[in-house]
Amino acid sequence: MDIVITGGAGFLGQRLLQALLQRGRLSDAGGREQPIGRITLVDVVPAQTFGDARVTAVTGDIGDPRLVETVVTPDTSSIFHLAAIVSGMAESDFDLGMRINFDGSRALAEVCRARGHRPRLVFTSSVAVYGGVAGAVVHDDTAVTPQSSYGTEKAIVELLINDYSRRGFLDGRVLRLPTICVRPGRPNAAASSFASGIIREPLNGEAAVCPVASSTRLWLMSPSKVIESLIAGHELPADALGANRIVNLPGISVSVAEMVASLERIAGAEVVKRIEWRPDPAIERIVATWPPLFETTRARSLGFRGDDNFDDMVREFLSERGSSAPTSSASSTHS
Amino acid sequence: MDIVITGGAGFLGQRLLQALLQRGRLSDAGGREQPIGRITLVDVVPAQTFGDARVTAVTGDIGDPRLVETVVTPDTSSIFHLAAIVSGMAESDFDLGMRINFDGSRALAEVCRARGHRPRLVFTSSVAVYGGVAGAVVHDDTAVTPQSSYGTEKAIVELLINDYSRRGFLDGRVLRLPTICVRPGRPNAAASSFASGIIREPLNGEAAVCPVASSTRLWLMSPSKVIESLIAGHELPADALGANRIVNLPGISVSVAEMVASLERIAGAEVVKRIEWRPDPAIERIVATWPPLFETTRARSLGFRGDDNFDDMVREFLSERGSSAPTSSASSTHS
Repeated sequence: MDIVITGGAGFLGQRLLQALLQRGRLSDAGGREQPIGRITLVDVVPAQTFGDARVTAVTGDIGDPRLVETVVTPDTSSIFHLAAIVSGMAESDFDLGMRINFDGSRALAEVCRARGHRPRLVFTSSVAVYGGVAGAVVHDDTAVTPQSSYGTEKAIVELLINDYSRRGFLDGRVLRLPTICVRPGRPNAAASSFASGIIREPLNGEAAVCPVASSTRLWLMSPSKVIESLIAGHELPADALGANRIVNLPGISVSVAEMVASLERIAGAEVVKRIEWRPDPAIERIVATWPPLFETTRARSLGFRGDDNFDDMVREFLSERGSSAPTSSASSTHS
Repeated sequence: MDIVITGGAGFLGQRLLQALLQRGRLSDAGGREQPIGRITLVDVVPAQTFGDARVTAVTGDIGDPRLVETVVTPDTSSIFHLAAIVSGMAESDFDLGMRINFDGSRALAEVCRARGHRPRLVFTSSVAVYGGVAGAVVHDDTAVTPQSSYGTEKAIVELLINDYSRRGFLDGRVLRLPTICVRPGRPNAAASSFASGIIREPLNGEAAVCPVASSTRLWLMSPSKVIESLIAGHELPADALGANRIVNLPGISVSVAEMVASLERIAGAEVVKRIEWRPDPAIERIVATWPPLFETTRARSLGFRGDDNFDDMVREFLSERGSSAPTSSASSTHS
């Protein structure tokens, strides 16, 4: 198996790399497990390769079609397409967001088509394709209503991947990620950055600002469950997906108050005092458009599994904080 | 008012031109009716201008961004974007469909953005954004599930127009047209071409082939109601639409058997005998994915009106067949 990971230097890309190296095998188009021979990481910043001979890092911009043509070869069996401009930046720089999130994805799909051997393409979409449905439960057949350019670009690429899959140009799998929590590293330009910050910073002995009300509900998934889902999404037989390649992943719906209560149970009242409650109307407005509750019937029937409770998600962060897990957030992060 | 009609040489474009010339006025961004000073028709084939000094015909390809920059000027107040590669052709020539239906629409939206004065853009989308929901009733919040490249391209442009409207780059209005019936002229490469053909050809003394079973239900709208809807869509205040610029237009749900019964009532049993029933599995497969029934609550609350019954739609065709209405179908036709 010859694998490409876009956004390979990012937090998810590096976690996925480690999981794939550890696993050592992935299913081919015929459903048979094959050893992983090569993993190519593509990112705008140099990616860590952990000295593994199977791993190559390519530095470049997936908005550049020539780069995409170089990294996706006739040998490429699978692509994990994680690279994206995050929501806040895609909103403030419309052209950049369109060039990377849309044109880059289209170029990738076009190269798959040109190669002609129908590689598997796992694409990380986002719950940001839904906007303005606050309060309502999102079902698998709820219409997308993005209220951000990031969400729009993700929704457009989903449609493209469905059509490219239908036509046999590639074998797409689109996973709509919940907000990832607890994300290691530093805050980023995503409007959801606080969701990890209010847990991570206090645990690291730092102050954190919570820009939304404690009653705000979020739809969350831990890093480990996201990585499991990316691999499970790759391993699904194409027939199990049929014409619709899009899956809303099973998150858990947690209020900010419940998140803080978990933090207090696990780390104590003093740690929680490091959170400063300072409402930011701009962020509240964006977060208010994200649906906090999904009925993920399809994902569960396909075998995807979410987290059990938020306490475990805090513990996952604590147990991995001490490890050598990379915490780069320079690129390729989500929503 | 300075108006651009893409697909201006097509059947709908020419009907819209005549309706606008007759009407003489359209609402400006402030909601005040203003005289129509200029109408520019853009199409790949020369468009009829009916010798009206207000009308200019530009021949060119909306897939060419330079052409789009020429026709959309700082004076352009409104654009009716009707140009499209029809479903059958977009399926057989993927690159052509993407270039005209997607890239051309994006170029148009980009020029609006560059001009900076937020022109109104009325875009004709299609019920082809829905596929594989046969049997189910489509509601305003039903997720799109295109099963054709044409439907995919329309759905992508819808998302783009919503985001461009949200950002204030343009003032979009997306109307999802039912299958238009009875369309004058000749058959075209649309999979829905038979829907008009089985009425039009027998009335013209010619044989017609019906490639689907008589139990097949279709979601139909007459040419006159489509034109009324395009103008009503333009005239709506932006506030009435809000963040969601997409409207499923109210068609009527009619079975092929009911259509033929209308034809017999109006034209007699001999005329109906000119229909040859010859199932075409390829067309049946496509048509089977089109939803035949919609609940168009939003359209009705916005004031859009559909047809009353199919008999009137047959009579509309008969009454206009004798008139000077152009019947060109060389371009810019739908679904």
